[in-house]
This record gives sequence, C-alpha cells and structure tokens, in this order.
Amino acid sequence: MRKTVTIADDLVLGGDTFVVMAGPCAVETRDLLFTVADAVAAAGAGMLRGGAFKPRTSPQSFQGLGAQGLAMLQEASRRTGLPVVTEVLDTRDVDLVADHCAMLQIGSRNMQNFALLREVGKLRKPVLLKRGAAATLDELLFAADYVLQGGNDQVVLCERGIRGFDPATRYVLDLAAVAVLKERTSLPVIVDPSHGTGRAALVPALARAALAVGADGLLVEVHAAPEQALCDGMQALRPSEFAALMADLRRLLPVLGRRLVRTSGRGHAVAHPGSGPVSDEVIAP
Amino acid sequence: MRKTVTIADDLVLGGDTFVVMAGPCAVETRDLLFTVADAVAAAGAGMLRGGAFKPRTSPQSFQGLGAQGLAMLQEASRRTGLPVVTEVLDTRDVDLVADHCAMLQIGSRNMQNFALLREVGKLRKPVLLKRGAAATLDELLFAADYVLQGGNDQVVLCERGIRGFDPATRYVLDLAAVAVLKERTSLPVIVDPSHGTGRAALVPALARAALAVGADGLLVEVHAAPEQALCDGMQALRPSEFAALMADLRRLLPVLGRRLVRTSGRGHAVAHPGSGPVSDEVIAP
Amino acid sequence: MRKTVTIADDLVLGGDTFVVMAGPCAVETRDLLFTVADAVAAAGAGMLRGGAFKPRTSPQSFQGLGAQGLAMLQEASRRTGLPVVTEVLDTRDVDLVADHCAMLQIGSRNMQNFALLREVGKLRKPVLLKRGAAATLDELLFAADYVLQGGNDQVVLCERGIRGFDPATRYVLDLAAVAVLKERTSLPVIVDPSHGTGRAALVPALARAALAVGADGLLVEVHAAPEQALCDGMQALRPSEFAALMADLRRLLPVLGRRLVRTSGRGHAVAHPGSGPVSDEVIAP
Amino acid sequence: MRKTVTIADDLVLGGDTFVVMAGPCAVETRDLLFTVADAVAAAGAGMLRGGAFKPRTSPQSFQGLGAQGLAMLQEASRRTGLPVVTEVLDTRDVDLVADHCAMLQIGSRNMQNFALLREVGKLRKPVLLKRGAAATLDELLFAADYVLQGGNDQVVLCERGIRGFDPATRYVLDLAAVAVLKERTSLPVIVDPSHGTGRAALVPALARAALAVGADGLLVEVHAAPEQALCDGMQALRPSEFAALMADLRRLLPVLGRRLVRTSGRGHAVAHPGSGPVSDEVIAP
Repeated sequence: MRKTVTIADDLVLGGDTFVVMAGPCAVETRDLLFTVADAVAAAGAGMLRGGAFKPRTSPQSFQGLGAQGLAMLQEASRRTGLPVVTEVLDTRDVDLVADHCAMLQIGSRNMQNFALLREVGKLRKPVLLKRGAAATLDELLFAADYVLQGGNDQVVLCERGIRGFDPATRYVLDLAAVAVLKERTSLPVIVDPSHGTGRAALVPALARAALAVGADGLLVEVHAAPEQALCDGMQALRPSEFAALMADLRRLLPVLGRRLVRTSGRGHAVAHPGSGPVSDEVIAP
Repeated sequence: MRKTVTIADDLVLGGDTFVVMAGPCAVETRDLLFTVADAVAAAGAGMLRGGAFKPRTSPQSFQGLGAQGLAMLQEASRRTGLPVVTEVLDTRDVDLVADHCAMLQIGSRNMQNFALLREVGKLRKPVLLKRGAAATLDELLFAADYVLQGGNDQVVLCERGIRGFDPATRYVLDLAAVAVLKERTSLPVIVDPSHGTGRAALVPALARAALAVGADGLLVEVHAAPEQALCDGMQALRPSEFAALMADLRRLLPVLGRRLVRTSGRGHAVAHPGSGPVSDEVIAP
Repeated sequence: MRKTVTIADDLVLGGDTFVVMAGPCAVETRDLLFTVADAVAAAGAGMLRGGAFKPRTSPQSFQGLGAQGLAMLQEASRRTGLPVVTEVLDTRDVDLVADHCAMLQIGSRNMQNFALLREVGKLRKPVLLKRGAAATLDELLFAADYVLQGGNDQVVLCERGIRGFDPATRYVLDLAAVAVLKERTSLPVIVDPSHGTGRAALVPALARAALAVGADGLLVEVHAAPEQALCDGMQALRPSEFAALMADLRRLLPVLGRRLVRTSGRGHAVAHPGSGPVSDEVIAP
Repeated sequence: MRKTVTIADDLVLGGDTFVVMAGPCAVETRDLLFTVADAVAAAGAGMLRGGAFKPRTSPQSFQGLGAQGLAMLQEASRRTGLPVVTEVLDTRDVDLVADHCAMLQIGSRNMQNFALLREVGKLRKPVLLKRGAAATLDELLFAADYVLQGGNDQVVLCERGIRGFDPATRYVLDLAAVAVLKERTSLPVIVDPSHGTGRAALVPALARAALAVGADGLLVEVHAAPEQALCDGMQALRPSEFAALMADLRRLLPVLGRRLVRTSGRGHAVAHPGSGPVSDEVIAP
C-alpha cells in the first residue's frame, strides 16, 4: 500500500490525488501575496507556497521578510483556505516556522543539513524535502531517513532539477527520478518545474510531463508581476498563465487516473473559522 | 509554420502527428527481427527501428550484421509496411544504408562526426540526428546545420539522455530539451526513453512524459526476449509491454491534440507492392 | 597584496606558505587520534584535522563523538602543538566548536547553509569553507561573502571535488578551480585530494598536482588502520604513506617558491603551556 | 614494464620522458604556421601540433585548409625538425593524413567514431586518442582497444577536459584521470590544458599540475596573435608565454624524475635531410 501524507483532513498527497502548490518565490508585500494567493486559489491550487526565509546565493540579495513574512502567509492562508508550505533554514527557527504553516520545506541547498533534518524529524507535521542539485536519489532517500527516524513519517520528496552543462535551462529536470523514486519508496513525490527549468515559458510543458511521469503534485512559482519580482522572476508564471496550466492539467488528470485535490479549509494546520464545508474537488475535463 | 519531415507520402513528422519508431536495438536474426517487427506493427508503431551497424563501446561486443542486417530490415519493412530507420557509422557506408532504409540515423556518439553529417547532407532522405550525451542544444542545432547546409532539410532531432552522476539511470533524459528545441527550431523532435533511462521498467512513464512535454514521436526498443538480447537488453520492452504502452499513449494523444500516424505502405522509401491503401490512422481512445 | 589568514602567530595561510592539514576523517577513539596526530605532526603537517560532528549521508552511519570528540581534539592539539580544524554542522554548536579549535570547517554539504555561514561570520576565528559538490566558483565566493560580511575576514576556501559521471573517482577534483579562484579572490585556497578522489592510491599524485597548480595548502585524511575506519577509510593514507607524500612535497615546494609552515606551538588558538619556541620551518629538499 | 610509443627513433613517449606537443589550433597561413613552429621548436617543444581538418561545432566556422594545410605542416616539420601530430576526421582521409604526419590525432568528438578508430588501427603509426567530453575512462580504454585490436599498438591517450556545470572554465580538466589511467593501462597519457580550460591564463598552472600528476606530455595551443586566431584563440598561449611555461616545466621535471625529450630530426616519419644529429635533450634547471 502506498504511503500518504495528510496536509489537512481532506488534503492528502499520495495515492491517486494530485496537489498543486503555487505562489510567489518570496513573500514580498502583503498586497502582492494576497493577489497571488487569491489567483492560485481561484485557479485550483491545493496549497500556497511562499518563502519568508530565503536561501539566497548572495548575501546582497533580498533575504526574505522572516517572521513578518510568516505572519503574512498565515493571513493569506486564512483568507484563501489554502494550507501553506514554506521553507525553514535554521534549526533555531523550526518551531517558529512550524507554528505558521501546514508543511515545512527543506530546500535543496539544505538537503544534507542533517541538523535541520533531525529537528524537523521531531515535529509531527508534514515536511517537503527537495532534492539537492547534485544529490543522487539514494542520498535523497537517506536524507529523508533523518526525518523519518525522528518519528515524523509525513515526508514528501521533490525533484527540482540537477546541475547540468547546458545554459539553456537553469537546471536539468530529472523526471526519471520520479519513476525511480516510486520504485524505491512509498513516499509521495512532487516536481518543481519552476526551479527545474528556470524559465517561465518552459514550466507548462514540464508540468504536464511531471504529471504524465507519475508525480503526485507540483510546486509552481506564480507572481503578479514577474519582471519586478525580488527573487527568481524569470521562472514565475503570471496568474493567467497559471490558470491556463491548471486547465491543461485538468484535461490530463482523469486520463492518468488522478484527481486534483484541494482542501475544504476545515482541517488544515492553520485554522480559519468561517470556511464552508466543501468536499475534495475531483475535476473532470 | 512548423516544419514537417516526410518519411512516406502519408507518414509525416511534425505538426500534430505522433510517430512511434520501435524495434530491436540490433538486428540479430531474421526470425527475431520479424517477430518484433510484426508485433510493433500490430501495436501501432509507425516505423521500424533496428541496427545493422552497431556502435559498441567495446570492440569485443556484437558489432551488428552489417549489409546482411540491412537486407533483413528491408525484408521486414516489406513484410510489415513499416518504413525503417537505421544507423550509419561510416561515410563510406552512407549510400549502402540509404538504399535500404527510409531514414538514416546518426547516433549520439557521431553527433559531431562532421564528415558523416556532411555526407548525409548530400542525400535527399530523412535523417534522425541524436543528441550527444554531452552536447548542448546549440551544439545539436549546429550539427543539424551540417546536414541542412548540404541541402537536405529532412532532419528530425532526438533527445536520448545526457550524462549524469546518478547510477540510478543510464543517462538523464532531458525532457526540457524538447521544449527548448521547439523554441529554437522548427525541426521535429522525438525522444528515446530506452537509451534515456537504460531500464525497461522506466520506459513507459518517460514515454508518456515525452508525449506530454511536446515531442513529435518516440524511439523505443522492443525485443522478444530481452534477457537474451545481444545489445542493451536491459532497456528493451517485451512486445506485450510495448502494446500496453501504445494503449496508454492512445489515451493521452487526443487530450494533447496529437494523432498517432503510421503509413499505409504505399509511399515510403522501401516500396512493397501489394500493400493495400490505408489512410493515416487517427486514433481516439 | 594577497590576503593572508592567520591560524596562529606563526602559522599563516596565503602568500608563499604551504600548510598541510592532516588527520583522521572522524575522531573515533582517543588512542587512534593520538597515534595519527603524532604521526602527522612528525611528518610535518601544520594542522590537525578530525571530525567530531560528522555529516553522514545515512543516519545509520557513525555520526561522530560530538562534544567528547572536541575534547579529544583539543587534547591532541596540546600534545602535538598542531592547531585543530574541525567541522561544525549546527548554528547552535558554533560557540562550542569554536572553543575547541583553531579553525572551523564548513563542509561541502553546508556550503549554502546560510544560517550557519552567518553564525561563523560573527566569530573572529578562521573558517575553512569547502566548495559544494555542485557549486560554481561564483556560488562559493558568494557563500564566503556571508562570512566576510559578518566581519570575519579569516576565510580559507577549499576545492574538494565536484560531481562527475565516472565511477572511477568519487568526485572530480577540479584543480583549475584553484587557478580561477586565485584570479577572482585574494582568499587562500587549499585542496582536499582525499574527498576529491575517494581513493588513497590517487591522493599523492593529486596532492602534488594541487601544489603545482598553486594551492596554499592541503587537507589530507590519514588513518592508522584505514580498513577499520568508521568513516571514509577508502580514501585515508596510512601514516607511512603520508610521510612519503610529505617527502615528495618537500622536494617540490622550493621549485614552486613555497615554504612548508607549521606552528611553533606558541600562539595558536588552543594554548598549550610548555611547548618550546620553534621558529617556522622552511624546508629545502 | 610500462609501454612506450615511438614517434621517431629518438622521440619516445612513456617511461621517464616528457614530450610537449605545441602549435596552433588550426593551420591558417604558411607564415603564421612557420612563425609558431619556429617559436615552439626554439622553446623546447618535442612535436608540432596543428589542424588541417578541423571539427568545428558550426559549419559556418573555419573548417581548416585540408590537404593544403597538411602540406604546410609537412613543410614546417622539415623546417623545424619537429614531428607533426594532426587530426583526421574521415575514414576516407586516413591514408592522406598518415602520409603527412608522424602521429594521427583522433579528436574528442570522434572518440567513439568506431569506423575511424578501426581505420587508424590498420596503420602502423602512432595515434593520439583524446577522451570524449562525456566519456568514462573505461569507455576511453575500450575506444583504444578498437585501435589496438587492428594491430596498431602505438596509442597515446589524452585527457582534455570533461563537461562541467561551471562556466568559469570551458571544460573540467580531470587530472585524476591521469592517475587512474596509469593504474588501468600501460599506454602513455598526456594532457591538453588548452582545451581543458579554454583560457590561456589558466594553461600554465594546469600544465604544471599535469606534469606533477604524472602525465607523459602535454598538448598546448600556441598562436602568434591569439586575438586574430580563426579557431580557439582564447586558449592559445603567445610564443613568449609558451617559452615561460617551458622554463617552468624545465625546473619541475628533474624533481619529478622526468626528462624533456625532443627529436634530433633524424628518424621521424617525415624525413627532412640536412638536419644535423642532435641527441635527445635532457634538461636540467
């Protein structure tokens, strides 16, 4: 029996579901976040992504809003009903981040930050573990073991591109990794075509391919004005492009035996009173 | 307008068609070839693939049947009505190979064998140009230019996996390459999930992904008894597995706006009198 | 003027010096550590390396002795007069580790653990920053910026091999990186041929090449009984092999305008009363 | 006993010799070739390199002077006494090229052009086989087997850089490959730091490292006016830079137990009457 990871009572990864996590690379302003959150919710996303603590290559780059960004994410979650996934960078921030989201992300640069893995392993909250850009699949699974051995069995793996030699794409999205991981583990596996390609124009095609290869979900960057983004604007879809992608996915999902799920807003980690009871959405073309 | 490559009067790559080229890695015996050829034809393949001249890493490995293998391929083509694609390795063999097939393959090891590229550029016959395992997409397009500048504009590109660091797969199938190539050229692009993964169990998932990402066709290895194959048995599908894959593809094709095509047997390079007139097959689930 | 990093009053990296840091991958037992420490000191090493906190791919592997290992390293330092370099993995351990060593190592898996980089940037103690296995040199320099911007300008860079496709070596030691870094930064650069190749038999040749290419020092694993090592035994030199390597280096150093330095034991971070005053060793063949 | 390859009666690769092959990437004009040939001969090169048939990525790039270039190389060889190594690209040109040089080069793009390997395997003339940019060392050795099995045992291997992810260098020069090849084969191994780095400023440091790691020689590009070169000018040394490199190597060679050899001009493949008898040069600093 394949393992499932429960984000909220009615939002489950694994099995025949498909979950799209979408949002901006970084939380920049409250307005921008809400605009994007509303748009991705309307288009059918199941979770909201967004970074408050950003692991940036250069210390001169925008480093994220930190605790303030977490609060905005929580507010956006209440507003839209979408559970939030956001990255944690420091062992000392794990509790703070966990209090503000439904799922903690361990980014690719920290895939072998074993102290951090152990710390999120102590939680009883879902963890999204992204593959390092030079990590073998066995190394990814060993990294997951650090979380699992802490007693936290709610781990979702994410392929997000590996280092390659061709500047045509930022990374090489290794979709065979999904198929291999499905053989070696029962943990759900999602794909990040935004980082995996680094270019918005390539995201829809690779998102479709990720669904076709057997992924359990997607992590997609969406920004209201990509050309002004403080982080990774080149790879962000506009809300209209994201909506078009969701329409494509909806046509493909039933043929591939999958159903798009999103939460009703009742049971996820960040409670938001007033959300009406809506059962899981199973979408047909 | 997107460029098309015509294999036979009614078998065209490019546009909204999808062509599956299938067959054994190498021609081993007449019987085995016919068994596989019949099976892939029955399952809906559009072309027969098979190597008579094999570029093997070690000189101790089976090197192919050469001219004898070409004759068998021609015979199998007449029998099944499937046009043949087969590899040429030496400038001195170009005419011989061209006389026996509908499309010449330049393998990945020879992608920058410029003498060979120039020689097939003198032909007026389709050429399948496979990406080298360490070639950038620009290098692939420059290699295609060697053929195009000879006046031969019938070039199909093929992504077949690039070198990676993880032994989990033989190569890293770079499906984003298809999307990038679609931006940079109007030449048709197909995908080889057999070499791209090196393991039969992964081929169906990656074949589906290749279709979803926008490829114009597939190159798939099929063998009646993979465990006894003289070449690359690990990555060959059995006929029944290939038929199952074709059934999957047939379900996905219409959603992706593509139609599976195969020839009626009337107009392809290797004439075979007696084949009845059948129009292009457009398959709905 | 090229930047120097001072480990102890009379042990300086950068300029025309050459510093060999040697010792076991991990601190395993007090006896083993002392045996190796004595041996590398006798052979001319300038610093003692050894891991108390080990970043192991699998949680099942030996994880190091932690604080106990740090104490043993300090004892070995007092005994031999060699300053210690050892790895820190967690922001919460930075002060503890700093109290027990002369130089903190940020391992390749943590090269982009920005929280950790910021934390060691607050210290006024040398930091050894190892290149990530998939990091570009610009990414390495940006990582160094995280430390430098905290006000800690005592950073030494280390090339330790990047991911490659050939299982012949564990990583690909990128010696051109040393020459490129010398163009782009004035920080000292050392090389780790042990991790860079993964095989003891290759270490001496690559160590010589590292010296010839312009490195300011080496990081070399030495173990009294490599076949029983709890960590990376395959790549550890025996004490006799290390002594032979040091003899080779001594012959090459003057031709390359470098002098081997080691501390007198007076001024390094871990004080050990009673060490006699010995001036820097400048070795001629 | 280690295998040696004899270029001329008194010019032998393997054992304790070190042979520097230098010259322009491509033969461009008679005057330029002679200028460079004279300069590298004066500086102590043992062989003249230069391409008449050039394997260029784009068909628009300069493709070499062909037969005319071969004649110029032969003339330059007579003038300087330096045996010539030059590339062959096409099975049909093997005899022509063999008639004009002392050693045939199989370039990295053709490392697995098995038809070409078999053809040079029929010769009884030294072959320089360059590693493909994505070839494992086992694949390189299997490629050498294609030549050896033809009965031509005069094969020299060349490491020239593999594909990497960092644009800082054109390729990643894999110097550990030299040490690994020395374990797996008795064939001589040389290194090409010009292609291996792609930047002239890096060539001297990597050339020194190649000598230190155990290579039997170097392949170095030299051009009288790199900024005007028709091919790979970025990586060519000026004659004065090459002379400075040779001076560096002369200082290192005796420490490493090697002697720089060049021919007296008596016995190499392209005879040139009138060259006086000079015994092998063994150079001390």
